[in-house]
Amino acid sequence: MKFCSNCAAPVLRRVPPGDSLERWVCDQCGEIHYQNPRLIVGTVPEFEGRILLCRRAIEPRYGYWTLPAGFMENDETAAQAAARETLEEAGARVEMGEPFSLISVPHVNQVHLFYRARLADLNFNPGEETLEVALFEEPAVPWKDVAFRTVANTLRHWFADRKAGSFGFHAEDITLR
Amino acid sequence: MKFCSNCAAPVLRRVPPGDSLERWVCDQCGEIHYQNPRLIVGTVPEFEGRILLCRRAIEPRYGYWTLPAGFMENDETAAQAAARETLEEAGARVEMGEPFSLISVPHVNQVHLFYRARLADLNFNPGEETLEVALFEEPAVPWKDVAFRTVANTLRHWFADRKAGSFGFHAEDITLR
Repeated sequence: MKFCSNCAAPVLRRVPPGDSLERWVCDQCGEIHYQNPRLIVGTVPEFEGRILLCRRAIEPRYGYWTLPAGFMENDETAAQAAARETLEEAGARVEMGEPFSLISVPHVNQVHLFYRARLADLNFNPGEETLEVALFEEPAVPWKDVAFRTVANTLRHWFADRKAGSFGFHAEDITLR
Repeated sequence: MKFCSNCAAPVLRRVPPGDSLERWVCDQCGEIHYQNPRLIVGTVPEFEGRILLCRRAIEPRYGYWTLPAGFMENDETAAQAAARETLEEAGARVEMGEPFSLISVPHVNQVHLFYRARLADLNFNPGEETLEVALFEEPAVPWKDVAFRTVANTLRHWFADRKAGSFGFHAEDITLR
């Protein structure tokens, strides 16, 4: 059972007039409670050809390696959110670069957006949600222990683009097989 | 006053433990109700050098011209959302192209994402949220009557890129002056 955040009455799943999808609708105050995908934003932080990864101290994927990223918040730009998450999770200050990958993950209602970034220095250290932070050359990346497919795909694009000598922008989807 | 959607108890603004920002927190069931920016996705639909625009039949900006776009929904990819909005608002079927612009608008907690797209045919017609649909050559675009800055910026980038002979990807922010 769910309740209306405006008036506390129970809400029901129903197709509002003029709409084509079921929503949470409050019959008492008339509010339609839309639910929309969330943006996960992060960086690919580089230092002299090595990439910074964080080992997760939280579920899901506790103990697995990820790029610094998290939910974009209200009152910030996407690039600000990516820099903030990099500071929070890795204690790392970055010079932000261009957007690099945009990956829809519809089965979890998320869109992941990663920016290229350059580490300002080597003074990073794990935040509360991180067990350890380390830099990896391409052959050392722990591919089997990468937390999410969006992160693995983004890393693969980054190393491929570097090899090709030119960084592009990569838009794709990850859907359930 | 706001209420918890899980248990209907009143929620309060407070900084949860380990967090740095105020959230809507329910003291009864412990739920933290995060609020995150929403993604607006749309297309720049082209037909033989002309761009399709929609005149809005809804607020905000009733009567002003816009690119077809709307809130991304759960259970769809960003590109699917952009094609769906184009069909709903303009009755237009498009062949989707690459992402073209990504614009953060933090003061309204939105990120706007536009894709290049090609109209399959000229059988378009206004949906319920649209007064009229028309194709515009660059000199005919009603710049003073364009509904949103994200749309105006995206159109300017599109015409500039076409003139330059190469379409890029444009990431930027629109902040209050």
